[in-house]
Amino acid sequence: MAAEERNSEEEKERTRELELEKLRTLLENHDAEGLHAFVADENAIDFAQQVDELSDEEIEKLTPMLTDEELGSVMEQSEEEEQTRIAKTLDNDRILNGFATMQKDDIVDMLGEMPIGRRKELINAMKADDRQIITNLLQYPGDSAGGLMTTEYIALREDRTVGQGLSKIEEIGPKTEVIETIFIVDPRRRLIGWCDLRDILSSPKDTMLRDIMHDDVISVQPETDQEETAKLVSRYDLKALPVVSATNQILGIITVDDIIDVIVEEYDEDMMQMAGVSSEESLETTLWQSVRLRLPWLLVNLATAFLASFTVRAFEGTIEKVVALSSIMTIVSGMGGNAGSQTTSILIRALSQNKLHFKDCIRPLFKEVLLAVINGAACGIVTAIVVYFMYGNVFLGIIVIMSMIGNLLVAGICGFLIPVILSQLHLDPAVSSSIFLTTATDVLGFFIFLGLATLFLPYLV
Amino acid sequence: MAAEERNSEEEKERTRELELEKLRTLLENHDAEGLHAFVADENAIDFAQQVDELSDEEIEKLTPMLTDEELGSVMEQSEEEEQTRIAKTLDNDRILNGFATMQKDDIVDMLGEMPIGRRKELINAMKADDRQIITNLLQYPGDSAGGLMTTEYIALREDRTVGQGLSKIEEIGPKTEVIETIFIVDPRRRLIGWCDLRDILSSPKDTMLRDIMHDDVISVQPETDQEETAKLVSRYDLKALPVVSATNQILGIITVDDIIDVIVEEYDEDMMQMAGVSSEESLETTLWQSVRLRLPWLLVNLATAFLASFTVRAFEGTIEKVVALSSIMTIVSGMGGNAGSQTTSILIRALSQNKLHFKDCIRPLFKEVLLAVINGAACGIVTAIVVYFMYGNVFLGIIVIMSMIGNLLVAGICGFLIPVILSQLHLDPAVSSSIFLTTATDVLGFFIFLGLATLFLPYLV
Repeated sequence: MAAEERNSEEEKERTRELELEKLRTLLENHDAEGLHAFVADENAIDFAQQVDELSDEEIEKLTPMLTDEELGSVMEQSEEEEQTRIAKTLDNDRILNGFATMQKDDIVDMLGEMPIGRRKELINAMKADDRQIITNLLQYPGDSAGGLMTTEYIALREDRTVGQGLSKIEEIGPKTEVIETIFIVDPRRRLIGWCDLRDILSSPKDTMLRDIMHDDVISVQPETDQEETAKLVSRYDLKALPVVSATNQILGIITVDDIIDVIVEEYDEDMMQMAGVSSEESLETTLWQSVRLRLPWLLVNLATAFLASFTVRAFEGTIEKVVALSSIMTIVSGMGGNAGSQTTSILIRALSQNKLHFKDCIRPLFKEVLLAVINGAACGIVTAIVVYFMYGNVFLGIIVIMSMIGNLLVAGICGFLIPVILSQLHLDPAVSSSIFLTTATDVLGFFIFLGLATLFLPYLV
Repeated sequence: MAAEERNSEEEKERTRELELEKLRTLLENHDAEGLHAFVADENAIDFAQQVDELSDEEIEKLTPMLTDEELGSVMEQSEEEEQTRIAKTLDNDRILNGFATMQKDDIVDMLGEMPIGRRKELINAMKADDRQIITNLLQYPGDSAGGLMTTEYIALREDRTVGQGLSKIEEIGPKTEVIETIFIVDPRRRLIGWCDLRDILSSPKDTMLRDIMHDDVISVQPETDQEETAKLVSRYDLKALPVVSATNQILGIITVDDIIDVIVEEYDEDMMQMAGVSSEESLETTLWQSVRLRLPWLLVNLATAFLASFTVRAFEGTIEKVVALSSIMTIVSGMGGNAGSQTTSILIRALSQNKLHFKDCIRPLFKEVLLAVINGAACGIVTAIVVYFMYGNVFLGIIVIMSMIGNLLVAGICGFLIPVILSQLHLDPAVSSSIFLTTATDVLGFFIFLGLATLFLPYLV
């Protein structure tokens, strides 16, 4: 199975390279006919990814050969960096022709990546009504519901019939992103409900839309954070989420494919931030940019490392007498960190699913305490046995067991409370729990172990 | 803003509790009428979550009062544990009546959670064609495309007209999950293309479906892993992904809402496994179950901690002479771990997006090396200054700088290569990179720092 998988992946890689070769040959020969056939054959997203592998010179050859529709499709499916490279090879008229075939939210995303000067030129050259829509959309931050929404949706008035609705859908359907959910508005364009296209298709033509609409419509305002927005879509299995103004007038809709992108992006961000990297950074980031992005986090960690180091220093007198302590102390502190992140990650999941209410904390916290004693005793005994064989001292082993239990208690309690407190303070526990936790388990781990060793020093030397 | 947010969350919490109170009163008074009104008023998912908060006795009172449709809706929207609690209060006939209103994939999920005996009873009591479908679906693992798919889709034959297609859609549409994408099959039910409902709605009634269909259909086989499946939907922005047999006959479709659940689930799993917790564990897990799930991972970590500890032990002679080393060594090893996980998390993201090909590794690896030297020097100099003020020894500071650079080099190179190698071996780098990385940066961090200190010992004492 693994071998098969590997083969099929290698095969995909080979196909990918052959296709790219073919595209390059078409460009070399200025074969526009062949290029159109090639584009028609490829999936739009795959083609955009092939274009991404081309050099700037090749892209300069490519873009004049594409039809406006092909160009629009490549721009729509490209990532930001690639969009910028493509835009550089085009004059404003050509970009606007491409825009004409694109969804409004994708146009806004692309404009957002452009230098302000060029963005203004393009917007000023647009038709008045497009300019109006685009300017409106551009005012919302990219990570808000307004930044995600598109204006291509179907909203029908409640006082229209199914038959009138259907002919409207036939007419504007091809220009919209979602037709399965039709939104229903009152004469002042306030969102009052939604219809499933299935119900419209299967109802008599003279039924009023208000009679088949559902009024349990879930909507967001344009300022709503994208994470909040994604949670709503995921919780209620929505196909499209309408965005409304403060007076409940429909402004646009957010589609599921954009929500998937948000979920993936938010998780990536969490993962990266947990490790102290900005999600802006990638393999292509320049050296100095990477230094600028990573060094500050390392320095924060360095500060907390000093705290642990000062703790050890306070016990140098003890270590001087029993140097074996220096090799064992890192085991105790390290295990605290590991056990603590187990607790923290369970808490973070429960918090993100809204499954933990502040008043219900006592029982699970008590469980973590018991768990720390049991796991601490188990790890402590194993360590004590190894330590006994290394140094032949029983008392050292007893101190190891006691301090392992002690530090796992610290880990369990802090691992539980830190994410709970951070989330009460409206900070993201996934991102910032670990630095507080490590500081606690390092400092207290060293303190408990070396403190006990100092107390029992006569038995150790 | 933060205060407002807090208020609105508290308000939500209050509404939630009031609604629950209302539900409990309705149950207390056996007010069936009132209950139906209550259910009609709530969103199905919210109602299922309220039911989850009820006691077993309350659920026993509730279920007989619900209509079959209401029961089906609660079962469909419940999580596994809740489904089990509900099923316990019902006889087989009642469950089957509820099933009759549910999607096939949700029925299969619920059956999958039941004891085998009861599952068999229920399946045997089904109508022959339902039994056939359910038995087929049950054979696929829950985390495969087959386990995700539903059989409620629309597939039309290529040799039908738009008019024929439309009346079929009007007829079976209400029973299907997705109508925006209509799949097109040949007379032997082999999947050959798809139509957008928009195109069907706006084409003349006598057009043949084959003339408006797209033939670039993306499909998976039922054995395909759910993660792979989710990647396809996300990459190609699909509204529904068909599942086909080895002979390309359509078996079912996977809908976007199930894909969102998969993405969230897979990311949660990754996050938890990174921290050494099983995604099976939650706040409700019993104490002994938690011990069983967490202790093995702690023991693995303990084994690697011993490796670091043995390294320190090898230099005990040096530490005995310069005890200051014991407080500084943990800074050097710890910073290596932090820097390494920065590199690793960038690599993991690039690998998961298929953005890194094995042969393109040289340049970014070289960048990591330079980055390690720069960040290592910066952190090293800061540490050296602090160390100088603590101990007044210049040579100690020089050793700190050299070993910080050395360990950040180890961190950069290992942090880069470990995920690349793991992914070449088809292991998930997100899950297992950190244990190898920590071992490397701990062991080599101690070795470099204490080794250098041993070499320059005469200058330190």
